[in-house]
Amino acid sequence: MNFNSLNGFTRPLARLIDQFERLPGIGPRTAQRLALHLLRQPEEQIRSLIDALQAAYSQVGQCQCCFHLSADVLCEICSNNDRHNGLLCIVADSRDLLALERTREYKGSYHVLGGLISPMDGIGPELLQIQSLIDRIKKDNVTETILALTPTIEGDTTSLYLARLLKPFTQVSRIAYGLPVGSELEYTDEVTLTRALEGRRKI
Amino acid sequence: MNFNSLNGFTRPLARLIDQFERLPGIGPRTAQRLALHLLRQPEEQIRSLIDALQAAYSQVGQCQCCFHLSADVLCEICSNNDRHNGLLCIVADSRDLLALERTREYKGSYHVLGGLISPMDGIGPELLQIQSLIDRIKKDNVTETILALTPTIEGDTTSLYLARLLKPFTQVSRIAYGLPVGSELEYTDEVTLTRALEGRRKI
Repeated sequence: MNFNSLNGFTRPLARLIDQFERLPGIGPRTAQRLALHLLRQPEEQIRSLIDALQAAYSQVGQCQCCFHLSADVLCEICSNNDRHNGLLCIVADSRDLLALERTREYKGSYHVLGGLISPMDGIGPELLQIQSLIDRIKKDNVTETILALTPTIEGDTTSLYLARLLKPFTQVSRIAYGLPVGSELEYTDEVTLTRALEGRRKI
Repeated sequence: MNFNSLNGFTRPLARLIDQFERLPGIGPRTAQRLALHLLRQPEEQIRSLIDALQAAYSQVGQCQCCFHLSADVLCEICSNNDRHNGLLCIVADSRDLLALERTREYKGSYHVLGGLISPMDGIGPELLQIQSLIDRIKKDNVTETILALTPTIEGDTTSLYLARLLKPFTQVSRIAYGLPVGSELEYTDEVTLTRALEGRRKI
């Protein structure tokens, strides 16, 4: 097996460590620390963790409207009528949606594509929630669609594709690319600087 | 509740994130990343993690001889006759034992105290595996006891206490304190330097 199973761990403990190591960003040492920590906790805590894992996995699906993670047919945002204000923000996945929600600035609704167009990985538009997006824009009263996709090749390809597709139905904009707040111009990479110059605004 | 439950998470997901956040070294962002990652995995992986948690918690206890974590009555080290070679290394907990095992240099057996003497925290010698240690030293053929406790007030107190207690039965030594390999003398703290000077050896 791996690093941990060689070094004096009893088998069930090695197995737990191995499971933790499969998680993103958890290395052998952290996996070991987590496993040893859990063994020292009262049984209720292990039980709560197991219950939470089971509940999350069995109950959480996708919102039938925006495809955000949801335990109900409609997510909290889609169930909130105040958020259907004509603004629709398009994101690649739920993590991006949550990042935008943390700003507490955006009050419209979302649509989660489930990824980005990436011919290299065999991901074409048909694998993303694009048909549902068009249906939604036609049906709902969407005045502006905001593309909030990462400024990478895949993000830009998807933005261009969607912009062309959606323009007959709605105004399309994309979030600004430029210098992050607090960054130093001197240490900013050329591509970001180019984007910042292109995106310059009159003051 | 916490940071995560406020920001558009469906309840079962917020609960799972909350459980991850209780683990040591896992902040809100990491907890969120872990939970979202797990939801995207095939069911077998969640199942394996849950099984591993249950098995580790229900099966792992303490070795009846050295008090290291073990799923059996005796741990792998204590069941290995080659390791009963007269050397006994005393450690505070299983993590320290595992760190020593990783060196692959030590071939003797261990005794896990289960903590360090700490009057401030109300931990006296009677709460540690000290009586079992004395019984073991009297019974087994221990020629040298090596104290491998951290160089802190609690570690030093425990070392001094044990040294006095064990000297009638066995030779007692402690691991060396000094400069870690690869460190810079210039940046080493005064206490470590003092220990390194005290521990100087003829070459």
